[in-house]
Amino acid sequence: MGLRTPEQYLASLHDGREVYYRGELVKDVTTHPIIGVAVAHAAIDYHMAEDSRYRDLAVVTDAETGERFSRYYQIPRTPEDLVLRSRLIAASTREGATLVVLIKEIGTDALFAMHIVADELARRGKPEYLQRVRRYHDLCRREDYALAVAQTDVKGDRGLGPGGQEHPDYYVRIVEERPDGIIVRGAKVHTSVSTNTNEMIVLPTRAMASDDGAYAVAFALPVATKGVKLLASSYGGFRKDPFEFPISAGHKMMETLTVFDDVFVPRERVFLCGETDAAGPLALAFVKFHRFTAVSYKLPLLELLVGSARAIAEYNGIERAGHVREKLTRLAAYHATVRGLTDAAAQQCAVVPPGIAVPNTLLTNVAKYQFAANYHQAVQVVQDLSGGLLVTGPSVEDWQSGVTGPYLRKYLGGKKGVPAEHRLRMLNLISDLTASDFGGYQEVLAVHAEGSLEAEKLQTYREYDFDGPAAYARKLAGIEPD
Amino acid sequence: MGLRTPEQYLASLHDGREVYYRGELVKDVTTHPIIGVAVAHAAIDYHMAEDSRYRDLAVVTDAETGERFSRYYQIPRTPEDLVLRSRLIAASTREGATLVVLIKEIGTDALFAMHIVADELARRGKPEYLQRVRRYHDLCRREDYALAVAQTDVKGDRGLGPGGQEHPDYYVRIVEERPDGIIVRGAKVHTSVSTNTNEMIVLPTRAMASDDGAYAVAFALPVATKGVKLLASSYGGFRKDPFEFPISAGHKMMETLTVFDDVFVPRERVFLCGETDAAGPLALAFVKFHRFTAVSYKLPLLELLVGSARAIAEYNGIERAGHVREKLTRLAAYHATVRGLTDAAAQQCAVVPPGIAVPNTLLTNVAKYQFAANYHQAVQVVQDLSGGLLVTGPSVEDWQSGVTGPYLRKYLGGKKGVPAEHRLRMLNLISDLTASDFGGYQEVLAVHAEGSLEAEKLQTYREYDFDGPAAYARKLAGIEPD
Amino acid sequence: MGLRTPEQYLASLHDGREVYYRGELVKDVTTHPIIGVAVAHAAIDYHMAEDSRYRDLAVVTDAETGERFSRYYQIPRTPEDLVLRSRLIAASTREGATLVVLIKEIGTDALFAMHIVADELARRGKPEYLQRVRRYHDLCRREDYALAVAQTDVKGDRGLGPGGQEHPDYYVRIVEERPDGIIVRGAKVHTSVSTNTNEMIVLPTRAMASDDGAYAVAFALPVATKGVKLLASSYGGFRKDPFEFPISAGHKMMETLTVFDDVFVPRERVFLCGETDAAGPLALAFVKFHRFTAVSYKLPLLELLVGSARAIAEYNGIERAGHVREKLTRLAAYHATVRGLTDAAAQQCAVVPPGIAVPNTLLTNVAKYQFAANYHQAVQVVQDLSGGLLVTGPSVEDWQSGVTGPYLRKYLGGKKGVPAEHRLRMLNLISDLTASDFGGYQEVLAVHAEGSLEAEKLQTYREYDFDGPAAYARKLAGIEPD
Amino acid sequence: MGLRTPEQYLASLHDGREVYYRGELVKDVTTHPIIGVAVAHAAIDYHMAEDSRYRDLAVVTDAETGERFSRYYQIPRTPEDLVLRSRLIAASTREGATLVVLIKEIGTDALFAMHIVADELARRGKPEYLQRVRRYHDLCRREDYALAVAQTDVKGDRGLGPGGQEHPDYYVRIVEERPDGIIVRGAKVHTSVSTNTNEMIVLPTRAMASDDGAYAVAFALPVATKGVKLLASSYGGFRKDPFEFPISAGHKMMETLTVFDDVFVPRERVFLCGETDAAGPLALAFVKFHRFTAVSYKLPLLELLVGSARAIAEYNGIERAGHVREKLTRLAAYHATVRGLTDAAAQQCAVVPPGIAVPNTLLTNVAKYQFAANYHQAVQVVQDLSGGLLVTGPSVEDWQSGVTGPYLRKYLGGKKGVPAEHRLRMLNLISDLTASDFGGYQEVLAVHAEGSLEAEKLQTYREYDFDGPAAYARKLAGIEPD
Repeated sequence: MGLRTPEQYLASLHDGREVYYRGELVKDVTTHPIIGVAVAHAAIDYHMAEDSRYRDLAVVTDAETGERFSRYYQIPRTPEDLVLRSRLIAASTREGATLVVLIKEIGTDALFAMHIVADELARRGKPEYLQRVRRYHDLCRREDYALAVAQTDVKGDRGLGPGGQEHPDYYVRIVEERPDGIIVRGAKVHTSVSTNTNEMIVLPTRAMASDDGAYAVAFALPVATKGVKLLASSYGGFRKDPFEFPISAGHKMMETLTVFDDVFVPRERVFLCGETDAAGPLALAFVKFHRFTAVSYKLPLLELLVGSARAIAEYNGIERAGHVREKLTRLAAYHATVRGLTDAAAQQCAVVPPGIAVPNTLLTNVAKYQFAANYHQAVQVVQDLSGGLLVTGPSVEDWQSGVTGPYLRKYLGGKKGVPAEHRLRMLNLISDLTASDFGGYQEVLAVHAEGSLEAEKLQTYREYDFDGPAAYARKLAGIEPD
Repeated sequence: MGLRTPEQYLASLHDGREVYYRGELVKDVTTHPIIGVAVAHAAIDYHMAEDSRYRDLAVVTDAETGERFSRYYQIPRTPEDLVLRSRLIAASTREGATLVVLIKEIGTDALFAMHIVADELARRGKPEYLQRVRRYHDLCRREDYALAVAQTDVKGDRGLGPGGQEHPDYYVRIVEERPDGIIVRGAKVHTSVSTNTNEMIVLPTRAMASDDGAYAVAFALPVATKGVKLLASSYGGFRKDPFEFPISAGHKMMETLTVFDDVFVPRERVFLCGETDAAGPLALAFVKFHRFTAVSYKLPLLELLVGSARAIAEYNGIERAGHVREKLTRLAAYHATVRGLTDAAAQQCAVVPPGIAVPNTLLTNVAKYQFAANYHQAVQVVQDLSGGLLVTGPSVEDWQSGVTGPYLRKYLGGKKGVPAEHRLRMLNLISDLTASDFGGYQEVLAVHAEGSLEAEKLQTYREYDFDGPAAYARKLAGIEPD
Repeated sequence: MGLRTPEQYLASLHDGREVYYRGELVKDVTTHPIIGVAVAHAAIDYHMAEDSRYRDLAVVTDAETGERFSRYYQIPRTPEDLVLRSRLIAASTREGATLVVLIKEIGTDALFAMHIVADELARRGKPEYLQRVRRYHDLCRREDYALAVAQTDVKGDRGLGPGGQEHPDYYVRIVEERPDGIIVRGAKVHTSVSTNTNEMIVLPTRAMASDDGAYAVAFALPVATKGVKLLASSYGGFRKDPFEFPISAGHKMMETLTVFDDVFVPRERVFLCGETDAAGPLALAFVKFHRFTAVSYKLPLLELLVGSARAIAEYNGIERAGHVREKLTRLAAYHATVRGLTDAAAQQCAVVPPGIAVPNTLLTNVAKYQFAANYHQAVQVVQDLSGGLLVTGPSVEDWQSGVTGPYLRKYLGGKKGVPAEHRLRMLNLISDLTASDFGGYQEVLAVHAEGSLEAEKLQTYREYDFDGPAAYARKLAGIEPD
Repeated sequence: MGLRTPEQYLASLHDGREVYYRGELVKDVTTHPIIGVAVAHAAIDYHMAEDSRYRDLAVVTDAETGERFSRYYQIPRTPEDLVLRSRLIAASTREGATLVVLIKEIGTDALFAMHIVADELARRGKPEYLQRVRRYHDLCRREDYALAVAQTDVKGDRGLGPGGQEHPDYYVRIVEERPDGIIVRGAKVHTSVSTNTNEMIVLPTRAMASDDGAYAVAFALPVATKGVKLLASSYGGFRKDPFEFPISAGHKMMETLTVFDDVFVPRERVFLCGETDAAGPLALAFVKFHRFTAVSYKLPLLELLVGSARAIAEYNGIERAGHVREKLTRLAAYHATVRGLTDAAAQQCAVVPPGIAVPNTLLTNVAKYQFAANYHQAVQVVQDLSGGLLVTGPSVEDWQSGVTGPYLRKYLGGKKGVPAEHRLRMLNLISDLTASDFGGYQEVLAVHAEGSLEAEKLQTYREYDFDGPAAYARKLAGIEPD
């Protein structure tokens, strides 16, 4: 097949999956009032493949077979491949009104990581994983699947590893090995897009000690597998009018608490099974790609922070004030810094066996760190330039009413020539972006998604070459090498 | 009377006021599903006066008449008066779950300012304003009124003054003077608590040029005055479950676009009428008190940021990690800084004619600046310590369901001994506080309410004595005084 | 005696002390080209006692005996006492051109701490220490002594305590106890003003484990005691012209590596001798006072940062630019914050046995933290407003030369009406303050003197009441108390 | 010739130039006790061309003529050319112990800019400038000249342009035009390396108004031209021992106030002469290259901050503490950010007529802004990790003395196995780097050299494409394009 239509994608979600929302089993995710919004958002991916503006970016052709398939499934081999992947992620997020689509981004991040670790295991005498990974990769590409990745375990006491917890199920684990497969139990938190993908890849969340073998497990499953229960989050889940919530009324991502209630995984779909020393490398290889995905998809968000700040400053008539220019400059420098570091991460990639281009890990983490560390301050600046109407403005009904509407049209005008409607629409956009539950979602994602601020700092510390600079310091200090 | 019961307060709101919500006229604000929450919140003030824990703080007794009345109405004469006023504001906000009550705080801030400016006008030969202010103050105190203050005009192009706008009504103005009073027209934005106060005081928002006489106007009116139309904001206005939204399900403040559609104000209630050189001083005197109110009522909010961060860190099992202690320390220092500066502002007050203690303006503004400049970063820290569950957590129905509930109880536990329910409740609290529309409301208020960040910087610049330090610099540089 | 003249102070330093500078024994510290500058600076203290402008602040009269003595020696009993002590410290530092005088400040900080700990020991059955402390305090006050305090041990590996070091002498210790006294060995680093005080008080630098008894020692000695060797730092020690270095040409503080080469301390002067559980409290009590001294003496430094920034901005003709006002405002807010918190620390002091007012420890540490955390950024702002001439300017000889001088007078003028000389003098002042070794000294002191940034953060963490806020969070979250 | 030896370079400076130091005419700059240090430092450039480790980087061969010449003189045509230029600048600065060599960097920055502007003027009908620029470029390359650039005028009142000053000479100007050349008068401040270059290029410092024709002038001269007077700064100019000052004892850059006392410039060396509309573009084109030079040469400085911080943390035994790792991570992220943005600026260059690769201006300015805005905080971190000994340490004579040396060797040891000498040498390095006049020099350069912080912010504001993001915001807000 290679490429699916949006309609085929929607139809594929009628598969008997077990999704709960507000305590109730969801009959049809595509028509559910809340989850349906997320489904429509995810379909952006399939629309773009058909859209002449995006087709060259979104679709690639296999040189040998002539098969056309989604660029996401193409293994990156060069800096250019990474740049195009990054551009595609940004473009689809821009279509998604700053909300990432993610139904292929995250899954292929996992697939690339699985290739690298399976290749290493093959060199260590276990060739079966690499074969399985390749076949699974081919399957997903051919079927044009939407993929979720479940990585973060519920963890219990975060100060302890899997083995030391009050409860053995606080990390997903193998409870039984059978000739034809394994039985797994446990739960993963905030699994994104899982309500509306075809498949789910499950990865370990951290390095494992040598006696944590049952926790060193990776596999993939159709979402509609017996025993897989998706408890969808209700966060931000209420009907929103698009006038009041220009972004989140039409764009949504679902997260689930994903429970594996003694689920059978066939051997062919098991990608790690007890190799404790490979758990950490797999978790790490995944985030190397996934943080690059993250900084790529954050760029439209930063664009919108800058763009909406600039627009509202003009509408308010303050765009020439010194402090306003200063603030716009800070936003611009913030955006340019993250974008420049992301580009540099692609340019300075490392090609590792089996021939996969990995974005420069130090630069990726530093880009992510700069993004995350400064996001809340950027939000403050945008709110500052907008004014208090962000949280004291009228409703769509007020705007449409013959009684109240005229007052709003008269009194909410800004600079001469700016209609009240433009100003109010821009304020509503910024309110949705920064001062609604969607705004809170973006803030929390900034510090937690794809690894927390601390994770990025830890990785920066590990990737940075301290030895060279320290040797330089000793040389200048006149300290002889030992 | 002196003191009203909560019931009397509620009853007093049945006065025919013209409040619109989502385009519809509200019949009874006390029973309206959204505004009713704000009414109940405001009633905290009257409950506290009856509560033995708070009575001494909330109520004072007139030494001469023996009359008991709300402390808010007491004109501060000493540092101690300001300290107690600040304590009362903090205590009621703490009762309000970090949301200020405000129905007397803001109104008395305005009354104190009006006393000062009217006294100055009396010394300049216009004694009538001071007499009116005194009588109006007596009335409010005696009736134990709830008061709103409408100050911020809609402004149009913020780069221009009242006279230069595209529309003459962008600032509230006198359209006709009559022997018995004046007719006013215009609109004020984000008037807080006006849906549920008895009276509304209207103040100029800025200094006025000498030819802006029609805009130099201050007055007071019952909310239920003909021509006064309150367009209530729908922001955050949906029904919330207290399990999911522990703060905002039960606590709310309403803001209105307040339209004056050719409203008559009797002479007795006019406190400024064309004295352009007094408009700026009145606006400024008001914010001197009102920013002190602000830093007082922000303290419980900062307490809760620290307290919830500490609690969730313990529940997550990370409270001993170095970076966690560092972050808790930064939150603690932030809180202690704002609180210390607020206390110092009271201690170092200035007593001005007619014998009113004004909190130290420099310290008040610096306290407010420290609060506002660092708020978003503090939110980031709290979100950082909490984890992604802030925005991916379950609903109350999931928790109560026999199907999904047991999974949540099993998998959302934290550190040993911490029940999943405690952890989830704390996460919901923090989500409501920082990642909901209420969280966005607090962020926007941080940079806009009671004067923006820029306003506080401007005032800091004006109040700081640069001359002394500059003279010291010249002396040390060996530059002779001219 | 009670009060000495500056001449008596200088004469008292001819006592055979063993001071080394650049490897050579110093014959007379008062006439030494470098140390002599420090002596003259220290004499400010004695001059102020004679100066009618300062006498009331600097000198107090014993109500009973009528004896007049330096205010530093007065034990603070009330907030007002602390405020006046703080004012005196600031005033003398202002006289010292932003360099603290310190010859009584630090010693009395130690004496107050010794009183508190000795009182506690007395209550635990060891009354002798309190008697000794009182007698020693009386002696110092009566003789109007200058006092140094040696606290910071050389420490070796900072990750280890005294007992675990490679070398047992890395912390000062008792090597022999004799009936009439003790023999001590070890060294203390950066002992300030010791080259020119009469006495030196030696305190432990940290809490001690129960088997570190030999290190739990406190005592006092005349500087000129056999075996006490002062190795004075050469940092910043070269002759400076007052035109080029308006501050540091005439103001200097000396630090020494203070070696105790098996020094005998008579019993009467021993204030701690093996009581390991009192070592930490003594170290801590000292810094409680000493950090309050620190924030008091930092105020003139902050004044000068603000004042010189304002002056040079005017000379450069940029004082009205938006970004300049913004920067001056940030400096002003920084100064006002530290000053406000310092005042609040005095106002909110705790009176502890035996009746001594201790500045509020939380507020003191937060004030110090705010000072230290923001100092370098403040320096950046001042340098930013000044221009590159700070480090590319001419010498005093260029200014005086008939060949080069006229070019400087012609070309280095600033805004109309500002003579080149004024501008150059102000630039030299700022260069000395921020871009010379003296500037580096102030930067390093900001993060290390009187406890490092980390020390202040640790103390803030310990002093802040987390329990109250955490209980408030649990209450709002609906979590029942256990 | 193409390449000169260090000896030839030194000999070339005996040319009768008029340099003043501390009011005295300098007979021989190469042997002057202070300026001689700067000359030796500058000679690094010529040594590197002979050094097998650097030759390939430092020298290029003309493909046509086979002539070998300094890479600095090669006009960049591709991203790769810019990357290599950047690497060369960093390598020579690293040899210079973090002090840039600059004797070819800045001059070629100017030459490239002159090519671009002259090419534009040629297209506008004035081909003579491009011919002159090419001949001058050939001359410099062939003679392997050292070049200074004098750009910053003394400026007087910075709030005014050249024409509005109290004195007409506050900007360098043409006082007479003659058939064979022009006479210029005025002075430039902080001209770097001019005491020891062969030539000096003079550029306008800003855009000029149409009636400021006399100030729109650019030209080049041998330093030893009649009427050119160099008043060398005495800043940091004293003899330093290399033990105490490991960097600045052996590395120095001189700045001069460069006076043009009615100097004749022959027509052939005039590159702008009254074309007011080209003055701004020339000033801007220069800084586009020069800020790229700046961020390239700042990298070794950042390396040393990181490296010395890491080394001293280990020596002090604190490298495993959480806060220390946090601080090292912040330094590492700072370094990686500036380096990554610099690389991206080269990669994303623009090739402009006549075929010159210009580093991406937005990214260059953002890199410079990130460097400058965070430099002082980085210094704070390094000082924090080092300890107070930075400013209270011993002298070289103390170290060598038989009396005091043994105490230092005993007491200044750090972690086990770290000799006191290593620790002391590292502390001295950091003290020189951050807490000496050299440290102050670096701080001031950070905010002023190659354009101030404000200049970088202004350029960022101008280069950033606000229109695209603003259009995106309007689209998402539902605002129709006009």
